[in-house]
Amino acid sequence: MKFILILASISAVRGAPLPLMPMAQRVAQSQGELKIDSTFAVATSGYSDFRLDAAIKRFLERLQRQTGQALTQSDRPTLAIECRERASDYPSLGEDESYELDVTTSGAKLQARTVTGILRGLETLSQLIGPGPNGWRVPAVKIEDRPRFAWRGLMIDVARHWMPVSVVERNLAGMAAVKLNVFHWHLSDDQGFRVESKRYPRLHQNGSDGNYYSQSEIRQVVAYARDRGIRVIPEFDIPGHTTAWFAGYPELASAPGPYAIEHKWGVFKPAMAPTREETYTFLDNLIGEMAALFPDPYFHIGGDEVEGSQWKNSASIQAFARAHRLAGQGQLHAYFNSRVSKLLKKHGKIMIGWDEVLTDGLSPDTVIQSWRGSPSLAEAAAKGYRSILSSGYYLDHLQPAGLHYAIDPLDGKAGALPPEQAGRILGGEACMWAEYVSAENVDTRVWPRMAAIAERFWSPREVRDTDSMYERLDLVSRWLEWSGLEHRSASRRMLGRIAGGANPEPFRILADASEALGIEGRRHAQQYTSLTPLNRFVDAVPPESEFARHLASDVARLPDAVAEAELRSAFSQWSALEIRIQPGAESSSFAKELLPRARDLSMVGSIGLRALDFLVKRQPASADWLREANLELDRIEKPVGEVNLAGVRPVRLLLARIGPQSVANTSVRCGNEPGCNSTTTVLNWKFQRDGFKITQ
Amino acid sequence: MKFILILASISAVRGAPLPLMPMAQRVAQSQGELKIDSTFAVATSGYSDFRLDAAIKRFLERLQRQTGQALTQSDRPTLAIECRERASDYPSLGEDESYELDVTTSGAKLQARTVTGILRGLETLSQLIGPGPNGWRVPAVKIEDRPRFAWRGLMIDVARHWMPVSVVERNLAGMAAVKLNVFHWHLSDDQGFRVESKRYPRLHQNGSDGNYYSQSEIRQVVAYARDRGIRVIPEFDIPGHTTAWFAGYPELASAPGPYAIEHKWGVFKPAMAPTREETYTFLDNLIGEMAALFPDPYFHIGGDEVEGSQWKNSASIQAFARAHRLAGQGQLHAYFNSRVSKLLKKHGKIMIGWDEVLTDGLSPDTVIQSWRGSPSLAEAAAKGYRSILSSGYYLDHLQPAGLHYAIDPLDGKAGALPPEQAGRILGGEACMWAEYVSAENVDTRVWPRMAAIAERFWSPREVRDTDSMYERLDLVSRWLEWSGLEHRSASRRMLGRIAGGANPEPFRILADASEALGIEGRRHAQQYTSLTPLNRFVDAVPPESEFARHLASDVARLPDAVAEAELRSAFSQWSALEIRIQPGAESSSFAKELLPRARDLSMVGSIGLRALDFLVKRQPASADWLREANLELDRIEKPVGEVNLAGVRPVRLLLARIGPQSVANTSVRCGNEPGCNSTTTVLNWKFQRDGFKITQ
Repeated sequence: MKFILILASISAVRGAPLPLMPMAQRVAQSQGELKIDSTFAVATSGYSDFRLDAAIKRFLERLQRQTGQALTQSDRPTLAIECRERASDYPSLGEDESYELDVTTSGAKLQARTVTGILRGLETLSQLIGPGPNGWRVPAVKIEDRPRFAWRGLMIDVARHWMPVSVVERNLAGMAAVKLNVFHWHLSDDQGFRVESKRYPRLHQNGSDGNYYSQSEIRQVVAYARDRGIRVIPEFDIPGHTTAWFAGYPELASAPGPYAIEHKWGVFKPAMAPTREETYTFLDNLIGEMAALFPDPYFHIGGDEVEGSQWKNSASIQAFARAHRLAGQGQLHAYFNSRVSKLLKKHGKIMIGWDEVLTDGLSPDTVIQSWRGSPSLAEAAAKGYRSILSSGYYLDHLQPAGLHYAIDPLDGKAGALPPEQAGRILGGEACMWAEYVSAENVDTRVWPRMAAIAERFWSPREVRDTDSMYERLDLVSRWLEWSGLEHRSASRRMLGRIAGGANPEPFRILADASEALGIEGRRHAQQYTSLTPLNRFVDAVPPESEFARHLASDVARLPDAVAEAELRSAFSQWSALEIRIQPGAESSSFAKELLPRARDLSMVGSIGLRALDFLVKRQPASADWLREANLELDRIEKPVGEVNLAGVRPVRLLLARIGPQSVANTSVRCGNEPGCNSTTTVLNWKFQRDGFKITQ
Repeated sequence: MKFILILASISAVRGAPLPLMPMAQRVAQSQGELKIDSTFAVATSGYSDFRLDAAIKRFLERLQRQTGQALTQSDRPTLAIECRERASDYPSLGEDESYELDVTTSGAKLQARTVTGILRGLETLSQLIGPGPNGWRVPAVKIEDRPRFAWRGLMIDVARHWMPVSVVERNLAGMAAVKLNVFHWHLSDDQGFRVESKRYPRLHQNGSDGNYYSQSEIRQVVAYARDRGIRVIPEFDIPGHTTAWFAGYPELASAPGPYAIEHKWGVFKPAMAPTREETYTFLDNLIGEMAALFPDPYFHIGGDEVEGSQWKNSASIQAFARAHRLAGQGQLHAYFNSRVSKLLKKHGKIMIGWDEVLTDGLSPDTVIQSWRGSPSLAEAAAKGYRSILSSGYYLDHLQPAGLHYAIDPLDGKAGALPPEQAGRILGGEACMWAEYVSAENVDTRVWPRMAAIAERFWSPREVRDTDSMYERLDLVSRWLEWSGLEHRSASRRMLGRIAGGANPEPFRILADASEALGIEGRRHAQQYTSLTPLNRFVDAVPPESEFARHLASDVARLPDAVAEAELRSAFSQWSALEIRIQPGAESSSFAKELLPRARDLSMVGSIGLRALDFLVKRQPASADWLREANLELDRIEKPVGEVNLAGVRPVRLLLARIGPQSVANTSVRCGNEPGCNSTTTVLNWKFQRDGFKITQ
């Protein structure tokens, strides 16, 4: 089957883009629409199984939620589903996920070879349902679709902050909604061992602060994911990142105990003893127990960031190394990996590890997960290993969706590989490390940005227009709420808490114009541990301000009456903020820390109002005023309380339209601040200059 | 034990009212506070059982949600709980619900005779947790508390619109949070029979459109309620309101079938045949089956609104009536009730019925639920029957919380009864009839208004200051979200749906200034059935605008800088609304119907801005301008699209401060409109004039 690429711009037929994310491989839109009313019904033909039945049930339940229409009796099916072949219940790497969807004014037809293909197509159809001039409808469209990469994942760290089953499940629902197919479950680290082990119960008893998944919960989550066409890859990070293991089993460590769960962040000394046979007996038994819980053939052993000093300082380990001619930490680690790899094989599993496991003698079926970037990815592929990219998709950095979107697994050195080697790059995984993320706000850190990354993994490489992505992202972000994600509602609840007894509205206004700093900005701000409550303003604020982005595009659209009204409305709100937030700040410590920021946003609002008047009334701004305004914005642009004021950006753009010298001032401001490395500086600047378009 | 009443004004110690609802019987606040940090822990002494353990677990879980702090290891308990006596697991009418709570700077102590008392006290403590200048804290306070009425209920109609278990359960959690103790479950009506019957399966199979509770779900809900100290009273409404029964068992009816589930609203002809023995055999079996599912001794048989024509037109029924000297519909109904009453006794149940069951010969233990008002309540009590008041607490009328709050079960004729008779008035029940309420928005119709009614049922009669109630209601409304209620989040999701692809912000602004009409306004607006989707703006908008109320009190506080900023900010937003909402209205039929309302609110905003300038700058407004402004508001005040613009009210108040003649114009405007009966007119007017204070 040949696919002709028709990019997002095909939507020109109706004027607005189809709200698809990931964008489909081939989309052909025609005139007319299919009405979606309470008689909507589904018929199936060909192969069907419990996964398909459950998926249709979920689709119909969501359809009722998203339209607010209860379904009733129906005489004929609106949607005909045909699944052509029987396949395994459990999804597998490289399985056929393609589907065809044909929507006409009289009905919809969804065809696929596999049930998984049907699952993907149902999400597409759900995304297409929207309000029209005559009620709910799907535009007439013909779609042929299949993924670009076979491995499209999200990793969630449940060790550093505990994520209950409900949180995991609603994120799995979100993953399925944007056609991701791998859930990488980071289940152990220095801060916690999160799975019940019947063989070694002190792992979860002593190593989890009471927060772990029972084995029946693990099975429940695996089944939940399987039903949605998502594979579950467990990660037990060894031999470093293992302090929590040693709380119950200190004899596994390379130095004498006792050990306690680590509550700080960082790379710590404790590491497994690679030279004692008892270590491998333990791992043999544990891997055997865990292998039975996780049906997927792939099994992640971490392998990153071995600190090394415990090995270096142990006489017995060093003696062993000399006896076995293992030169240094690297070869000891390689020895450990080769032993673990054999254990995994024994239990029917294929090893995955982070970059560091790529050493001589590594089993050729190992999959390398690159957190270091394109060179290590390319190196792995060149050496014959399959690999996946995570560098550039670290959600905990809280960078703009557009930045992640601009990164492609086949960029850089990987893009220069011969086709055979490039073919070993299976795809990518976004990583939600949880130092500064709790069960309460994890949705706000993963979504909606994850949807943009999912498009990178699924859609043709040529789909890379950032404006189109953002336009669709706003719609998909709201649509994702119907799958149960709380990325929008959690923020508001948290702001209500911060407001305490006061009016929460001023806090919402401030939050809408703010952006939380990521891990780099926060680690320097104060000493956090896993016990520090994540209940401050920074934790409630999303990583990227949708509102500031809209205002920036409003500036670009000036003179336009709607755009002007939007800007004036925002700036007025901002300029009144300081006085409005005062009552709340008096009684609550959580609110009080926001006073300086509220004052700053009031200033931004006043500058914005003035600049808008200059522009609209075509009056020249004096050079003095422009210079002073920019100096104020220079100051306000610096993060405070681990939060950036994104509201500065549209006002900068406005100033640039009055006097173009104003932008140049800002390009290097961010470099010296926590949370601003050179990459973000350059990108932020390009964001401002190009109106939120990224050019790599 | 003697209680000295200390009303809400005690809060003067700290300046802000204690955020309690219902207000406790006796509150003595002192200096200082108890810090609530991650070491919070609970110890129990005295009697304890699974209900207490579960309640403490829930309390701690919510504490973590409401503070955003995870609890960790602790060396000593913060809260000491002492329950003195063993009592039945299942709550009972009149059981001791009193408790004492003593919070000092070093710890909290909660004591009660029963587990139910402890449950009530835990809710009080949870309400007291708030942010302070040094983080989370509870003010030092000593509380002695017990309910005024023993029967404090909420009825939810799950027949006219289906409410799944999750909806019922989260409303039970909300009920427990405000110390309600009776869930009246309206399980059958013309539009549906909602319980699985194994004895007569065609009841749920033919009578529910597939939406019914399995028996195990019923048991689950009953246990869920029991754990929270809430009794569950099932209602099977007979002999009228029974069309859904006849869909499966037409032989029960007084006229030949066939019958189908009724999807319209109203009082319908079908009624059970009161003269056939087979009817009573059927009811005997069914009551027996249902009695086993519901442990509470009280069983509701409805009995309201028998239309009568089927009985009048049946020769056999009329012949029976003559033979048994039953004169007319009333005596036939009394005969039916006496038969049913005997069946209930046989199965160990006590009968409850609506007003209409109060006829001669009614069994003396029957409880009368008054939907007709104080005279019928008083009549029942005078005749020796126990009774509860529902008139005045009909949530489906979507009236202001203050209106319900002003109504007392011992008002009017009931208040004039001798103490012995007055003692038969057990309390009250709010009723959520579901003609215009769906599973999606039911929370927005019940909450937060239910909390104000709960205070009426629990707190001393003298607690009746509406300003204080509203001040606390705002806080409690937000606190209730931590119990899982969706009254705030559901509205936003629904508005997002209405906005479609457009910016949802203008829709939120319009919604915040709007109020949905209740049943009286909607039944005249268009022909609704149970199949009509409830997904329009009116369904997303709450019954009472918290925002308009805040603005009205801002007007009262002028000249005050914060109040002025709040008003100016709101009016500016409103005045820009028409142009901002336009893009969304073009593509969506749901948004399009809002254009005229957006235009109206823009006008209100412009008038408000102008009036604010007159007032602040102490400039006189011309009589012409005032007259024209009031004429505009007169027009805009009329409901459109089943929605009132509450934003008019603060602007009226503002105009009144400039030129007092402006209010008088408005007092009778509402009387001719659907949704405005004379009561609401008078009350609305008083609301406006007195700044939201109700005087009965």
